[in-house]
Parts: sequence; C-alpha cells; structure tokens
Amino acid sequence: MNYGLIGASGKMGQEIIKYFSEQGHTAVFTLDLDGMRQDGIPEILLDFSQPQVFDTVLYYVEKFNCPLVSGTTGLSSEQINLLKKLGDKIPVVQSFSYSKGIQVLLKCAEILSSDLPEWDTAISEMHHRHKKDQPSGTALMIKDALKKEVPITSQRLGHIPGDHTVFFAGSGEVLSLTHSATDRRFLAEGILQACKFLLTKQSGFHTYKDVVFGG
Amino acid sequence: MNYGLIGASGKMGQEIIKYFSEQGHTAVFTLDLDGMRQDGIPEILLDFSQPQVFDTVLYYVEKFNCPLVSGTTGLSSEQINLLKKLGDKIPVVQSFSYSKGIQVLLKCAEILSSDLPEWDTAISEMHHRHKKDQPSGTALMIKDALKKEVPITSQRLGHIPGDHTVFFAGSGEVLSLTHSATDRRFLAEGILQACKFLLTKQSGFHTYKDVVFGG
Amino acid sequence: MNYGLIGASGKMGQEIIKYFSEQGHTAVFTLDLDGMRQDGIPEILLDFSQPQVFDTVLYYVEKFNCPLVSGTTGLSSEQINLLKKLGDKIPVVQSFSYSKGIQVLLKCAEILSSDLPEWDTAISEMHHRHKKDQPSGTALMIKDALKKEVPITSQRLGHIPGDHTVFFAGSGEVLSLTHSATDRRFLAEGILQACKFLLTKQSGFHTYKDVVFGG
Amino acid sequence: MNYGLIGASGKMGQEIIKYFSEQGHTAVFTLDLDGMRQDGIPEILLDFSQPQVFDTVLYYVEKFNCPLVSGTTGLSSEQINLLKKLGDKIPVVQSFSYSKGIQVLLKCAEILSSDLPEWDTAISEMHHRHKKDQPSGTALMIKDALKKEVPITSQRLGHIPGDHTVFFAGSGEVLSLTHSATDRRFLAEGILQACKFLLTKQSGFHTYKDVVFGG
Repeated sequence: MNYGLIGASGKMGQEIIKYFSEQGHTAVFTLDLDGMRQDGIPEILLDFSQPQVFDTVLYYVEKFNCPLVSGTTGLSSEQINLLKKLGDKIPVVQSFSYSKGIQVLLKCAEILSSDLPEWDTAISEMHHRHKKDQPSGTALMIKDALKKEVPITSQRLGHIPGDHTVFFAGSGEVLSLTHSATDRRFLAEGILQACKFLLTKQSGFHTYKDVVFGG
Repeated sequence: MNYGLIGASGKMGQEIIKYFSEQGHTAVFTLDLDGMRQDGIPEILLDFSQPQVFDTVLYYVEKFNCPLVSGTTGLSSEQINLLKKLGDKIPVVQSFSYSKGIQVLLKCAEILSSDLPEWDTAISEMHHRHKKDQPSGTALMIKDALKKEVPITSQRLGHIPGDHTVFFAGSGEVLSLTHSATDRRFLAEGILQACKFLLTKQSGFHTYKDVVFGG
Repeated sequence: MNYGLIGASGKMGQEIIKYFSEQGHTAVFTLDLDGMRQDGIPEILLDFSQPQVFDTVLYYVEKFNCPLVSGTTGLSSEQINLLKKLGDKIPVVQSFSYSKGIQVLLKCAEILSSDLPEWDTAISEMHHRHKKDQPSGTALMIKDALKKEVPITSQRLGHIPGDHTVFFAGSGEVLSLTHSATDRRFLAEGILQACKFLLTKQSGFHTYKDVVFGG
Repeated sequence: MNYGLIGASGKMGQEIIKYFSEQGHTAVFTLDLDGMRQDGIPEILLDFSQPQVFDTVLYYVEKFNCPLVSGTTGLSSEQINLLKKLGDKIPVVQSFSYSKGIQVLLKCAEILSSDLPEWDTAISEMHHRHKKDQPSGTALMIKDALKKEVPITSQRLGHIPGDHTVFFAGSGEVLSLTHSATDRRFLAEGILQACKFLLTKQSGFHTYKDVVFGG
C-alpha cells in the first residue's frame, strides 16, 4: 500500500512510518513542519497533525481523491461535520484514538453510566508534557459515551504515553475503569486496520468503533 | 420486618443489625459464636457466617420455614447446589457480594472478556487482615463472569474493606476495572433490598444479579 | 478529659464525639450551626469548623484560656499567622490533617522532590461530594513539602473519605505515592493524640508533625 | 567505549545496544543463545542474561580482566557473594534494576517501613508475560529495603514493562508507593551511567544505589 501522511514528524507520525514500513507499506507523500515530500500517488491519506492544518488536509484529500484516516486530536465540531460531509464522496474514518482498548472502554463506560445513573461520575487523564490539547480527545470521547456532563481533570507530565480513568462513585463504593498505554505501536496497528477497512469502502463516514465492532 | 441473623457478631452481621435497626426492622433471632438468642419468629433468615455452620443454617431455615438470604463466603459448590434445591421449596437469594457496583462490574467484565479474547487477563483483590477466605467470594464471581481460567492474587492487610481489580492486557495497552468499598453500610442496603425482593416470592433460587437487574 | 468542640455537627465533629466518648472523654462545650451547648469548662478546645467561624474560635480560646487543636481546612495564611501568635500565650496544634499516614507521606514527598529535581511533579486528590474547600488542605500541605509549584487536580464525588496522590514522572518511569482514607476514625485517634500532646505543654505553636515525630 | 554484552538478544540487551550505539559506544563482544561474536577487546562487560549462564560470565570477566555491570535477575545469594568477592579484584556494579526511580522508591520504602512498624505491608508487581523470574528482582530489592518479611504477589500479563507497588495499611488509611516503567530506554541510561562510574574505579563491589547517591 502506498500511503500519504500529514503530521509525519510528530510522535504518532513517526510510529506510523516505522510500523507501516515493517508491514511492507510505503509513505509516498509526507507533509509536516519541515516541508513536503512526494514520491508517488498515495492510495490513502492519513492525518495525524494539528487542527490548524485541517484545510490543507482537505485540499490534499481532494487532490488525491483517496480515502482519509483522520486521527488529529482537538478538531472542532465544525471540522468533524466537514469530515462527515466528505464521507458522502469518499470513505473516511475519524477517531481521536485508534486503540481497541479505548473502544471497549467506551462501550463499558456507556453501560456503567446507564446502570448507575445516580452515581457521581468523573474523568481524569494524564499524558506526556508535550501533549498540546487538553482535555485529550479520548477523554472527550469518554464524556460523549457517558451521555452526561462530567468534570474532567488533566495532568501533563513526563513521558506518559496516555492514561485515562472514568470514576463512578456511589454510597460507600467506587468503580473505576482505567486505560493505560505503554507505547504507541499498538495504535499504529489500529490505524493500519482502519486503512484496510477503508480500502474496501466506496464512501461513508466511519468511526474506529465501526472498524472494531463492524458497522 | 422481623428477621433472623446467623453470624450476628461478625463485621457484616454488626453492620446489618445497625442498618436494619435504623430502617425499623427487628432481629428476633440471632446466632453466633457467643450463642443463640430468640425473641420471636423471623419472617426471613439471613446467613452471614462461615461455611462450616451451613448445616445449622439449613436446620433453622426448615424450622422457621422462611426465605433465606445467604451471604456467607467460601461456600462449596455442593453447598450452593443444596441452596438451589432449597429454592424449590422456599425463596432464596445467594450471593458472595450484595454490592450493586460489583454487579455492574461483573456485567462489564463479561463484555471485556468476550470482546478481548486474546488479551491476558488477571484478577487481584485486597482485604483487611481478618478476612478468612482467600481468594474472596467476589473474586471468584469475577472469574466466573470472565468464563476462562485466570490467575487471582490476594493480599490481606490493614482494615481495607475490599478492593477488586480485573486486568486486561493487550499489546501496548492495559484496561483495568476496579471496585473499592469504603465502608460496609452500602452492603447492608443491598441486603435489605434482597430481603424485600424475597418477601414477594413464593420460591425460587435467585442471585443478587436478579435483585439488581430483575429476573 | 473535658473538651470543647467547635464544628460538632460536621462529619469530623461527629467522629470526634463518638471516638472521644468511647475513650472516656466528655464534650462539655459544643458549637455548630444548630447553636451552642455548655455543661462545664473545657480543658482543651477543638476546632473542626469553617474558616469564617475563625474569630469565634479565637473568642472562645481566650474565654476558656485553654489549649487549641485546630483542624479546620481552608484557613488563610493570615489566620494561620494569628494561630502562630496565639502560640506565644497558649499551646496550639494546627494541621489540615491528623493522619499519621499523611505525615510520613509528606516526609517521603519532600525526599522524592529533592532527589528527583528534574522530574515533572503533580498532585491529584479526590473527596466526597460534600467537601467544600478545593484543593484540600492536605493537598496544599503536600505542595508545601515539595517546595515547588505543582499543578493540583481535584475531584468531588460520592462518599470518598479522601485520596491523595503525588506523581513524579521521569523519562520512561513514573513514581506515585498515594494515601487513601477508608474511614475517619483513625483521624479521631490522631486528634486525641494531639490533645494529650498539648496538655503537657505551657505554650507554643505546633503542627501534627511535631506530635508524630516529636519536636 | 568498547563494551561486551552477555544476553545481547534479550529485551534489555536489545535496548542497551540501541541506546549505547546512539551515544557512540560499540559492542565489540556479544554472547547470547544465537552464539558469540567478537570484533575487539571490551573495556567493560555487561551481563543481562540468565542465572544459569553465570559461570560463563565469570569466565569472560577473567578473560577480559575488565569491570562488570551485572543486571541479570534471579541470581542466587551464592552468585551474588561470588560477585562481591570478584569486587576485590575488579570493579563491579550489581543491581536487579538500573532505574533511578526504583532507587528513590527503595529509600522511601525503608523510611515508611521504619516509621510505620505496626502497619501491615505487602508488595505487588506486574510484568509482561515473557518475564521468567517471579517475584521480580526489583520486588526482592524492595523486600530487603523494608527489613521484614512481607507477602509478594506477581502477575505476568501482556506487554507491561514493569509495575511495582508497596502497600502500608494502618487502621483506616493505606499508603502506597508505585513505580511504573513505560519503556526500557531509561534503564539503558542508568546502565550507561553505571559503566561510566565503574571506569573511574580500580576495584570494589557496588550497587546501583552507589551510582545514584554516591558511595
């Protein structure tokens, strides 16, 4: 597979290049703060950059007329709506997290929120000091799954790849559901899975949930 | 409600007496290591004692011909089968935990185990130094919900009311689901709920899951 | 010992009354939102109320001319300075926490902060939904022990008696030190220990650290 | 620096080769299950293999007559005594962990154990499924620091680089001190630090504690 990658020099971009290369896939187009490099026409485009580059992403999707895997965190709801419209023409997967563990966490968080409506609920997340958006995109996905307003606390320290916890507190008992990432390689696996899923589609806006559970 | 309580002097027994009294219910029959006390005929019998007293429990259930709430941990599968047979004649609720939080944890643990079949799974639990059975009855319930063999580690220290965690570890990510009890009062609430549930039944073997989710 | 208690109807006030009574001590003066009650002259005064009642506390300390154990959280630095001055005349212990565990946590937090100067540091705390001050007094004590500015996140949910964690994150490793309270009785033990400590003193401003480690 | 490495194909061996290479150091001698490779005379020998290879390690230390950094876990006390004797002739650093975080954890664990003698204490550790020794060498170092017998529980699951927690439980409160590794690179940093430390010594048996805190 020949792919394009916007945000190639970021932490996630580097992990994608390394893992995809091991799996026999070639980055024929990359774009990042250091400039643009093109060696061919990508069959699929991956965006793991910053929200402010969003228009550039749309420009290249139209130019290459190829599927898009969007993983940039911090996108606004307007930007996500534009991706949904884009899905009318080309296949799109958008997610703030390509972790299978996060997908099943979201499923359980929804059940817990529904079964324990009177319990107090809260989210906390911790990431490495270089993470720019706060709260994390994953924390926002968890809040959506809970279907109610909950406080979110964030810490930025060290090199922590990413920890998320959702708490449910009743009278005398506390349930917590925690996801900890220890590296980023497994995310690259999830992203490759999303690419393969898209290459079988003609169009449509999808989330990573669709990739994991079908849909 | 006039109730009987076997295991009245234990930690859970004391909590039941205190909470049930606040709610206007009277212990008319109690039995523990210090002896037997009877002031009337119980409408329902509660057993929160030790497995070795099981035959005595059956004796008093037959004598009073009343519903039974069984919460003794460490019962053997044979003893539980006897309770299931007893359910043909009188209404019975049996559970190693009367916590609503544990019930929803079990539900999520089952989902996680089913959605993440290749992930390594393990249970750990911590309780106060006086807890006799190991692993805890709740840990065994979690193992049953996982529907596979998993290692369980137990620690006994301090006055910890009870912590249970089930871990799911994939490549580069770990999910954990934790239940922490901070007191035992909420368990007495769950036990009273089970009593009220039984007083509407003629017979049948039930678990606390039936009480929480209906069934 | 005949003692006085300001904030008698609060969670901590109730725990003090219960534990001190078990130990043979009598509340001869109590003051709270419900009013004042006096049956004698207290030998020592305990304040576990709100910062806005501080002037009233000073009034009664002068009136009874007796030692003071101050445990109200959220006191301003001015109010604490007034307590320090008060120490010139009468013996005072002031602490935002009467937990021995917190005292040794503070000692370790200071060592960790000093041994790991380049590691990122942060504090998080969780308490029951009724706790008014935020961050908790204990979290502020931990920050002081670290001797540097660190972010503090707070959650208020359920009935959690009180959890505090301080994180130290280096490159590829994270150290965390956590204190969890499971009830409040042990705090009443620490408060009684502070009372006995004060009854041997003529004057002086002390912290609970002095009570635990001597000084 | 030209170094030799026994256990080159293991997880830690691979990390050492990668990091040392980045820092300009060359592996001129390697030995592992796949065989031996030699391109020069090492100035220092590193052993991150298995206890059963210990005699081979001693053989090569004598042959090259160079300092030794020993990081193999699961060494017996007899084997460690042989390393202490070896220190009479050549400089040796032996540790089950080259983590700075673990060193300060050990320091705090010792203080907590000494300040809280009546509290119940326990250790738990979790590592990836491929880790052979159980409990981990680091858990044994923590037990030594506590200066008393404590229960240790171990779990082996997923790809967890390594988590260790020591618990102290009093009446109504629990202190826990946790170390989590998120990768192994920082360990390679600690190992390089130990190499540099040894190259300034003529002889002597040292631990990584000496490297971190001096001594």
